Amino acid sequence: MSAPRQISRLLSRRSLISSSRRSTPTPIFKSPNLSVRHGSHLPPRSNQFTQPTKEHLDALKAISSSTLSTLDGSATEEELRSFNDDWMNKYHGKGSIVVKPKTTEEVSEVMKYCYEKGIAVVPQGGNTGLVGGSNPVHDEIILNLSNLNQIRSFDEVSGVLVADGGVILETADHFLAEKGFIFPLDLGAKGSCHIGGNVSTNAGGLRLLRYGSLHGSVLGLEVVLPDGRIWNGLSKLRKDNTGFDLKQLYIGSEGTIGIITAISILCPRRPSAMNVAVFSLESYEAVQKVFAEAKGHLGEILSAFEFFDKQSYALVKKHQEENGGERKVFETEGDFYCLIETGGSNAEHDEAKLTGLLEHLMENEMVLDGVLAQDSTQFQSLWSLRELVPESAGKAGSVYKYDVSVPVGKMYGLVEKMRAKLREGGVLEGDGKSEGPIRAVAGYGHMGDGNLHINIVANKYTDEIEKIIEPYIYEIVAENEGSISAEHGLGVMKAPYIGYSKNETSMELMKQIKQLFDPKGLLNPYKYIV
Amino acid sequence: MSAPRQISRLLSRRSLISSSRRSTPTPIFKSPNLSVRHGSHLPPRSNQFTQPTKEHLDALKAISSSTLSTLDGSATEEELRSFNDDWMNKYHGKGSIVVKPKTTEEVSEVMKYCYEKGIAVVPQGGNTGLVGGSNPVHDEIILNLSNLNQIRSFDEVSGVLVADGGVILETADHFLAEKGFIFPLDLGAKGSCHIGGNVSTNAGGLRLLRYGSLHGSVLGLEVVLPDGRIWNGLSKLRKDNTGFDLKQLYIGSEGTIGIITAISILCPRRPSAMNVAVFSLESYEAVQKVFAEAKGHLGEILSAFEFFDKQSYALVKKHQEENGGERKVFETEGDFYCLIETGGSNAEHDEAKLTGLLEHLMENEMVLDGVLAQDSTQFQSLWSLRELVPESAGKAGSVYKYDVSVPVGKMYGLVEKMRAKLREGGVLEGDGKSEGPIRAVAGYGHMGDGNLHINIVANKYTDEIEKIIEPYIYEIVAENEGSISAEHGLGVMKAPYIGYSKNETSMELMKQIKQLFDPKGLLNPYKYIV
Repeated sequence: MSAPRQISRLLSRRSLISSSRRSTPTPIFKSPNLSVRHGSHLPPRSNQFTQPTKEHLDALKAISSSTLSTLDGSATEEELRSFNDDWMNKYHGKGSIVVKPKTTEEVSEVMKYCYEKGIAVVPQGGNTGLVGGSNPVHDEIILNLSNLNQIRSFDEVSGVLVADGGVILETADHFLAEKGFIFPLDLGAKGSCHIGGNVSTNAGGLRLLRYGSLHGSVLGLEVVLPDGRIWNGLSKLRKDNTGFDLKQLYIGSEGTIGIITAISILCPRRPSAMNVAVFSLESYEAVQKVFAEAKGHLGEILSAFEFFDKQSYALVKKHQEENGGERKVFETEGDFYCLIETGGSNAEHDEAKLTGLLEHLMENEMVLDGVLAQDSTQFQSLWSLRELVPESAGKAGSVYKYDVSVPVGKMYGLVEKMRAKLREGGVLEGDGKSEGPIRAVAGYGHMGDGNLHINIVANKYTDEIEKIIEPYIYEIVAENEGSISAEHGLGVMKAPYIGYSKNETSMELMKQIKQLFDPKGLLNPYKYIV
Repeated sequence: MSAPRQISRLLSRRSLISSSRRSTPTPIFKSPNLSVRHGSHLPPRSNQFTQPTKEHLDALKAISSSTLSTLDGSATEEELRSFNDDWMNKYHGKGSIVVKPKTTEEVSEVMKYCYEKGIAVVPQGGNTGLVGGSNPVHDEIILNLSNLNQIRSFDEVSGVLVADGGVILETADHFLAEKGFIFPLDLGAKGSCHIGGNVSTNAGGLRLLRYGSLHGSVLGLEVVLPDGRIWNGLSKLRKDNTGFDLKQLYIGSEGTIGIITAISILCPRRPSAMNVAVFSLESYEAVQKVFAEAKGHLGEILSAFEFFDKQSYALVKKHQEENGGERKVFETEGDFYCLIETGGSNAEHDEAKLTGLLEHLMENEMVLDGVLAQDSTQFQSLWSLRELVPESAGKAGSVYKYDVSVPVGKMYGLVEKMRAKLREGGVLEGDGKSEGPIRAVAGYGHMGDGNLHINIVANKYTDEIEKIIEPYIYEIVAENEGSISAEHGLGVMKAPYIGYSKNETSMELMKQIKQLFDPKGLLNPYKYIV
């Protein structure tokens, strides 16, 4: 990219991919190649929990009519699969009962009953998690919240939305869009995930850079406690300093100390102007420099800064080729790519800021090439270059997915270390010595949040590969004082590794909190803090 | 204000007050008229705590050399006054020992000793609180953090500041200003308050509208637990989903479950352009309309929206007259005033947005008059119209201060109800029936956050007045599902009234948390959750 004109030329040729729209999340949740059984080191069933029987089922059916079970033939094992398995088909529960309450009171009655009987329960939202946190490990009852899906109120003056936990994120956002507001969270799974699940896993996503964490935007919660009591903490107030901020404990608690049945959240006005540009770059250093320039030039309108490497881009291109999408986006491809999104209240001002940035980047030869979206279709298409990475990786093979936080400067070093480790283990394809089974190690993520995703694409899941990756990847994260789970949570996958990110005192305090809030340990057992 | 020109004319005449700069916070903390003893209903001393003796003092001196006490004559009672009294001179502790540790390890050793001996401790930052939370109620040892005042690190890429809890807010902000960053919190007491105290009281302040709550911006904490253990939770990561977010519990816990010795906080870039305008308006309805217009026109650059009523303005004018400041600000005064601040990265764009708003407000006759600051002196002067309200009230008499949260539409109704109640009680001056003792009921606050401050200015504090105000004011807040403490906290003043804002289940959970984290109840007793 040597002059602004080239950006225009690229745009006039509409050399933009168009195979997938980011507002169509369904394909992201189909991963046909991920059918191999994985996660072999799961904890054994605990005898402290009562095994669910037909008698329990009858009692639960009396509480909530939308109850399915293999125990009385009201559902087949196959029909319960989507509740028992995670979407990557990596973790497989053996739950025989799925309860789908329609009201908070039903949730409360279900928990009262289970608490009395000592039956373990896994709360389940859209079941879109990546760490096996929302499906049973053994025979826990599945308390699915999809029937609790009403928007309760919205205040157009304050922007406060109150809605059931089972409302789908995209549904909430569409509702808000009509009023000129935006849900302060966006992520790939938006078409399936529940807002209650988002809060209970403290989802981060694509625009945390702009709208901040849920710890700041969630104003209140309604939670059913493990013993069935309903805690009404559904405040609509932006400021309230009257005692411990209890709701904060539930944000990110992954359903281990209560079930979020409703949330109250502060929603900002929807930006009236949005722009997106994607650049190819020479090096990770160049990405960091562009990030600094973007913050300086765009200031308050910068709403996302994402990056992906050439391996990620190759996966997406291959996936798009197979689906007949156009391919040529950049005249000059690079080893790295970044996506910059702006969202503001004045289109003219935003364009001026963005043009200022583009001119600066080109004059200083900080990027190789760039494409700027000119309409909403192009906007979606450019976003899909980044958003299709996980789906494209899934299409290419069995994917080991990692989600870590480290200081921005050290982020890509982790990917390189991982490649070196796999090469050393003789399992990396194309290193001159080996033919696989690892086809690609792709790095991408949310630059603005220091959040790196590493997708390791293999022919199939094997213990040999897993042993090369883990705990090595957690060790190098710990060396950099990072987090072994930036946004995906602990679930069952990372529960054994929490010590790489948290010290003894932290873990002790966490265990005390779990013990205090859920003394029988019935909620989402075998996970999180064990 | 009928045309933009008038704003220019006003500005060219520089009809701006200039008696006080908001960056000079000291005068705010001198309230000579507030010397009457108040708060007569304090809880009695608990026998569960060991009374501090000379022996304890010697042990504490061996741990921390900066220890003052009346027990060995190293300090007089008078010298301990500033530690024992709150700044309003409303609450008076009887502590005989002040420990001022220089390191986290010293804080830890002090707490280990006090835990072993069963001695109660009040953690103290800048002692600028408004609810008697940071001075002793009886003979608690005062653990003052002013010697723990080092900035530990700052990362110019991520904007993450790590600093001791005893760093003064303004010191931190000046440090950041030199690097082009801003502390994401600003409040009147900035020249005295500590950042550790800000976090432990979940301070809100003037720009919460823009930078959000500390629950979103604080990334990590170092806390000394009641038994003296040091919990190192000083994460610098923006995203970390590995277990309960323990730091959140300490944000707003008012020193009841741990002592914050260091914080890690995400600091945004400092806006390169800032503007402020103040308007006079006819009614509270007009203020609400202007607020909606400001959000629409200014979008992401709106950084503060404050309002104050004519009673507040009269107090400020009187105070300024007495101090020889200029007075004429508005050609047309109103029953209400509002202050709008913008902060952005592009001066030209910000001015265009602000001009758009001003033209719209004038064309539609939504304001009576307006003044726009043209340089940093005017900027400070206009801010002082709002920021001088509490100090001016203090100069005018003995002030009953309330800080509540209610939906924006209902905010001013509370002030009117309070006036009616006082009139009904025959204590309001100038209602045709009575000559006082209430001289003014002033309402002002942070419109953007639904946060109202009511200052009731009396000749002196009396039980008669207090009984008219309390619990009536809390009842009308509760009727509106508001908070009886938006940002000031509970302390000793509001601890008995928490039931007006929190339900039984909330209080039960809070008591369990207090019991879990501080089983001996040694930290900041008689306050918060009792």
